[in-house]
Amino acid sequence: MDNFEFYRPTKYYFGRKIEENVGSYIKESGKSRVLIVLGGGSCVKSGLLARVEKSLNDLGIFYVEIGGVKPNPRADLVYKAITLGREKDVDFILAVGGGSVIDTAKAAAIGIVNDGDFFDDFFIGGKTVTKALQTGVVLTIPAAGSEGSNSAVIQKEINGKIIKQGLSTQFNVPLFAVMDPELTVTLSNYQTACGAVDMMAHVMERYFTNTKDVSITDRLCEAVLLSIIETVPRVLADPTNYEARANLMWAGTLAHNNMCGVGREQDWATHHLEHQLSALYDVAHGAGLAVMFPAWMEYTFSHNVMRFAQFANRVFGVTMDFEDPSRTAKQGINALRSFFKSIGMPLSFADIGAKAEDIPRMLNFLGIDDHTEGHFMVLNRADCEQIYKIAATYHC
Amino acid sequence: MDNFEFYRPTKYYFGRKIEENVGSYIKESGKSRVLIVLGGGSCVKSGLLARVEKSLNDLGIFYVEIGGVKPNPRADLVYKAITLGREKDVDFILAVGGGSVIDTAKAAAIGIVNDGDFFDDFFIGGKTVTKALQTGVVLTIPAAGSEGSNSAVIQKEINGKIIKQGLSTQFNVPLFAVMDPELTVTLSNYQTACGAVDMMAHVMERYFTNTKDVSITDRLCEAVLLSIIETVPRVLADPTNYEARANLMWAGTLAHNNMCGVGREQDWATHHLEHQLSALYDVAHGAGLAVMFPAWMEYTFSHNVMRFAQFANRVFGVTMDFEDPSRTAKQGINALRSFFKSIGMPLSFADIGAKAEDIPRMLNFLGIDDHTEGHFMVLNRADCEQIYKIAATYHC
Repeated sequence: MDNFEFYRPTKYYFGRKIEENVGSYIKESGKSRVLIVLGGGSCVKSGLLARVEKSLNDLGIFYVEIGGVKPNPRADLVYKAITLGREKDVDFILAVGGGSVIDTAKAAAIGIVNDGDFFDDFFIGGKTVTKALQTGVVLTIPAAGSEGSNSAVIQKEINGKIIKQGLSTQFNVPLFAVMDPELTVTLSNYQTACGAVDMMAHVMERYFTNTKDVSITDRLCEAVLLSIIETVPRVLADPTNYEARANLMWAGTLAHNNMCGVGREQDWATHHLEHQLSALYDVAHGAGLAVMFPAWMEYTFSHNVMRFAQFANRVFGVTMDFEDPSRTAKQGINALRSFFKSIGMPLSFADIGAKAEDIPRMLNFLGIDDHTEGHFMVLNRADCEQIYKIAATYHC
Repeated sequence: MDNFEFYRPTKYYFGRKIEENVGSYIKESGKSRVLIVLGGGSCVKSGLLARVEKSLNDLGIFYVEIGGVKPNPRADLVYKAITLGREKDVDFILAVGGGSVIDTAKAAAIGIVNDGDFFDDFFIGGKTVTKALQTGVVLTIPAAGSEGSNSAVIQKEINGKIIKQGLSTQFNVPLFAVMDPELTVTLSNYQTACGAVDMMAHVMERYFTNTKDVSITDRLCEAVLLSIIETVPRVLADPTNYEARANLMWAGTLAHNNMCGVGREQDWATHHLEHQLSALYDVAHGAGLAVMFPAWMEYTFSHNVMRFAQFANRVFGVTMDFEDPSRTAKQGINALRSFFKSIGMPLSFADIGAKAEDIPRMLNFLGIDDHTEGHFMVLNRADCEQIYKIAATYHC
């Protein structure tokens, strides 16, 4: 096991109607001037925003709002949030939404208190974050795990090139996360399934590792995957099933708060490969991951057949073929694809409107000539090209 | 799933030689006057204490030490620690040891800054803790999970009656825990096995619940149990195996930081039944739990046969008997006993020198006439008596 540090001081408030207390959670932290970051109009329509506003009003907490965050969140809106936050002298950012809203809030929390350009300096410039406002979250889409993670991903177009870039820092860890599973019962089955794939991908990026002898985190990864796999079909069959929604929501947090990743090398190539699909076609991140993860697996499984056989056996119950473990490994990849298909996810370029002839652009956006991708298997340009080609040519 | 709050802001520093930085972790917190709490002489002999002292000396951090904490930690030493801590005006407590040392440190951290009697007021008096000094931990025995938990257990003799009592409060959550698996390679196989049973008990107290539909925490509980079960024999076969020791050490933290317990009713009857064995015979807590847990299971499994069948099947790989799940359930209890036996643990009163004729005293110490025990099955005096009798009469 590798040496590690683990520090996740987010306070989780989980359960029915818990969002009605959000004002008191802010007040406890001593903050009083809040920038609320929002997505589209769904939290207005549902009455959630009104409940959050009432909670703040009741305690005399000042707030100002900025809406319009879209999936694959853009730097543009972060700049607007920074300007507004500075104008109104806010001391706290409250994200009401899913991963894109939370990541926009995190980026604004850094940008408001730092001179210079938040994206150029910190996201791609490698400058170390030394200060940021604190953020809180009212979660409405379980998927990204950003409510408990130290990361944020923002997209910016620079000189015609779309750059989707993540930033990991302890300053990105939210102060609190308010998680009411009832807020998620209105999500469409497509949104729910995309979220589940994102969660599974967060675990699998950590599961496929070269670090030996990490039984405890292996088992935790398998546990979270097993729970997601048994829960999602129940949610899709009955979207109003509170209990199933609750299990899925908490699984999304545990999938990405790094409990499943400490002490081991992690991969993350597939996330980066997928980001280029999201950037080019504005496809949902989870849907892109459903296409890319099995493709990455097909290309890399021979690097450690027994790890893939363990995945197949423990997560999907594939019977171990002791004479030919590679058969077990391949069956596991097939089982993953079958599961994705069963929950309505795409499996190929064709399914998401991506085009094989765009692969050179994807590789260009990825910037793969300047670096390698992944750690389980270190991938160069030719490797990444092959993985995109597997995704492009896959047919059920 | 029940509503819950989860807040575990402990910073974990995990890995080889990490204890050499303990001074800087204290300094980062702004503290400068430390009471170091110690057990016996093993951390002197091993050179650990010298390394900790050097780390504090190098940064000019004042410290004073109190040693002699024993298993089943006594209130007497807490009172001494409180007096010393007040005399020396300390602002931080550093526990260097295992669960008993950590719990002594936690109790002293409460006692130093509160008037009155820490035990009578807070542990048995029900007074709410509103302030305490912060604690840090250098862990030497993975077992109690106290390095990441909100609980402490202290033993005090009042009017000839030995009271072993726990206290749970957010103030008991350590600021940091320094965890170097190398520090544990000198533990005897008996100590190691006792620790493993304690960890497993912490998970099982949470696993056997009446709360329905908690797939994610069920799976996490099973994951931690599976990892402990596959790791302990490796440690016992080669006590110097760093990797196996590391997995076991981290499992001990996850078993009791409540990650495995959120959103569900927990039981804890077995812990309370065992505390009376520890109090009467000064038996190691883990050894007492190895005797009491299977006895509790035998008495309660018919309350929810399918939950015990799930435990048997998923944790011990017992083939599910679909015609008679109670057979599966019983096989799971047998498998647990076999595992305990295989790692050198006692299974009966005879194995630990406990006597059936003392059962009335155990029930008296438990104070069972004033309350009930447990939540999975609510136990009255007659129930507890029967469970003690199962443990008393068990023969391999």
